[in-house]
Amino acid sequence: MKLEVITIGTELLLGHALDTNAIDLGTTLAAAGIEITRRTSVADRPAAVADAVRGALERTGAVLTTGGLGPTKDDLTKQAVAGLFGRPLVLHEAVLRHIEERFRRFGRTMTPSNRIQAELPQGAVALSNPRGTAPGIWLEDGERLVIMLPGVPVEMRGLLAEEVLPRLVARMARAGEETRVVRSRTVRLTGMPESAVGEKVGPLEDGLAPLTVAYLPSIPGVDLRLTAWDLPPAEADRRLGEAVDRLRREFGIRCYGLDTDDLAGVVLDLLRARGLRLAVAESCTGGMLGERLTAIPGSSDVFVGGVIAYADDVKVALLDVPRATLQTHGAVSEATVRAMAEGACVRFGVECAMAVTGIAGPAGGTPEKPVGTVWLAARHGGETRALGRKFLGERDEIRARSAQAALDLLRHALLEARPPRSQ
Amino acid sequence: MKLEVITIGTELLLGHALDTNAIDLGTTLAAAGIEITRRTSVADRPAAVADAVRGALERTGAVLTTGGLGPTKDDLTKQAVAGLFGRPLVLHEAVLRHIEERFRRFGRTMTPSNRIQAELPQGAVALSNPRGTAPGIWLEDGERLVIMLPGVPVEMRGLLAEEVLPRLVARMARAGEETRVVRSRTVRLTGMPESAVGEKVGPLEDGLAPLTVAYLPSIPGVDLRLTAWDLPPAEADRRLGEAVDRLRREFGIRCYGLDTDDLAGVVLDLLRARGLRLAVAESCTGGMLGERLTAIPGSSDVFVGGVIAYADDVKVALLDVPRATLQTHGAVSEATVRAMAEGACVRFGVECAMAVTGIAGPAGGTPEKPVGTVWLAARHGGETRALGRKFLGERDEIRARSAQAALDLLRHALLEARPPRSQ
Repeated sequence: MKLEVITIGTELLLGHALDTNAIDLGTTLAAAGIEITRRTSVADRPAAVADAVRGALERTGAVLTTGGLGPTKDDLTKQAVAGLFGRPLVLHEAVLRHIEERFRRFGRTMTPSNRIQAELPQGAVALSNPRGTAPGIWLEDGERLVIMLPGVPVEMRGLLAEEVLPRLVARMARAGEETRVVRSRTVRLTGMPESAVGEKVGPLEDGLAPLTVAYLPSIPGVDLRLTAWDLPPAEADRRLGEAVDRLRREFGIRCYGLDTDDLAGVVLDLLRARGLRLAVAESCTGGMLGERLTAIPGSSDVFVGGVIAYADDVKVALLDVPRATLQTHGAVSEATVRAMAEGACVRFGVECAMAVTGIAGPAGGTPEKPVGTVWLAARHGGETRALGRKFLGERDEIRARSAQAALDLLRHALLEARPPRSQ
Repeated sequence: MKLEVITIGTELLLGHALDTNAIDLGTTLAAAGIEITRRTSVADRPAAVADAVRGALERTGAVLTTGGLGPTKDDLTKQAVAGLFGRPLVLHEAVLRHIEERFRRFGRTMTPSNRIQAELPQGAVALSNPRGTAPGIWLEDGERLVIMLPGVPVEMRGLLAEEVLPRLVARMARAGEETRVVRSRTVRLTGMPESAVGEKVGPLEDGLAPLTVAYLPSIPGVDLRLTAWDLPPAEADRRLGEAVDRLRREFGIRCYGLDTDDLAGVVLDLLRARGLRLAVAESCTGGMLGERLTAIPGSSDVFVGGVIAYADDVKVALLDVPRATLQTHGAVSEATVRAMAEGACVRFGVECAMAVTGIAGPAGGTPEKPVGTVWLAARHGGETRALGRKFLGERDEIRARSAQAALDLLRHALLEARPPRSQ
């Protein structure tokens, strides 16, 4: 089944808002075997909306709109579509009761414009929207189908999953269409440049066909997105599962997770399974490592805390880095980062620690230690691994890459049985 | 002048990527008086691209495309548009030299497909792209105009500002069009709910006309976006400047900045101007406050560091919170947060500190202290202010609101001359 999406809102054209619904709509519909052939954004003017919907119906026959269902005078999607189908708007009693009940529950006063939200094009089906005032609208007329959803992401998502998708799947079944889907899985790698990933994957690509592989380099690492195109659902899932296994074998420890796995969560799970506790000592990351770890619910049973040692005096006073080490080697050095990790273990009374010290820029670089020079350490099992890196990019990028590299250094230390040699 | 935007890429339809170029294109063109009347996204198939461009030219006469100019077989924008104009692709020598030079500089080998990137529709102008391989393309034929840009954001932005905008402005001048622009300014408020902001702004709205006011509530606070619609540039800027002044007077200290100002940067500037130094003590934010402060370049002359005191033992050992305080009042209490801020000042030897302790959830709430209960403290001038809040939302939201509220508590302490009474 093919469908066009029309998003309605002057804000979208002016660049005042990003249409984040595109992600949910795209992935959800593709995974159910529905192809979005075009997305159009138009201003909230009735003529513009009607013109876009008419064009989409002529080309594709089925349209899903988002936006323009609110209570203000800018909200004219319904009126434009009803006009196109030559149908009047009629009051829908059940929807009106839902709106009244909602206003009562929140102790607010209903206005006449909210009453307009209970009007639907004659013959349309109201799609129940427990998360908001305006219902979704399903309007089918022979071969033509228009689905109207609110633009508010949480309402759009709920209506899509609970009301729209089941109806679309049933419609495809009635039409006797064989379901063929587009589905993806992601294999997450870190600590390897994209070119090295490419060299390993290149020779495998033919064997993975008909799946395609996309290389998605980003700050956390390189993601490999495997996509099954236009296959029956069971076959898509089977092939994706096999390909994920193949790539995990190929990359071994370099693969830290799948799909939406976060490296901080992976490291916390490894520590929890071993009954270990963790502290951090952060200079250039300034709290980012702690922030990432504590973003994971339940981290408190593993992570006890850390020191943000931005100034050198703090490295001495709170992490027991010898002042002589700072004077001899500098704050950004292997000796300092090792002392930070060891100091953190002692001060916090824990078995494991990560430390980061570096020059995130834009100022502070020298010819010997340019901006992007970072030292990382991970302490586990009484041993400290240290690693020096030179990261490229802006301040934020250098800091984020440093945090990710520190997490990965500890992950390696936890997974590699043999006591590590210092790098 | 009116223009349509067409973004090309199957990824966009599948929801694998968000079209972040929409923000830059929308705001930049609107600010120059060019109206985007429609945005369309299509798959990277020549027929789909040609169909979309043809429709846009018929409706609007001018089109800007992004994407589909790369070296792979999916990159077919140029071919589709050249076909539409009945023009062959011809090799552009200057562009070829630029590409060859680029490959030499990066020490990479040029492939035949990169050579195709030097081919342009006959009669088109190559727009210089120092940030990438593919040039932008300006193709004008009588009243019809097609501008093709790469989809890579940094390349798109550079080409838009340096090559496209000057040409569009000159074209409008030649056509004798009076320039009328859409421009916005943002007044940033925090510590007030949207309803209270609305009560203050409501009575002013008539006086601000023809500017419109949009309320943008988000985690950092409520932004008021003032927009001048379809005005001559000088008048737009004058009216926006007056309206910004009016709202700043109205909101006083509640307004922490304008446009892209960040509260962490505002607080660092206030401290720097007073020669003060800062430390943080973070429990539920887990490093987020430190992260926000150190995200600002040059923060090291004010911010010395902090303790992430996630576990209670750390609050005692590294911040000197009395164990009796924790036992009597609990970790999430006014007494504890005050002790954390005071301990941070002593341990770090600084004049100012912020502290945060709270229950970010999803677990850990009690009937007395539900998820979202947070205590904040700011120490300045030998006094500590503490503030208890109950934040709504998910874990991330509670943490982010806590960090923002702590920064704002310190900002108030710095700006209010009279020693504050504890709240």
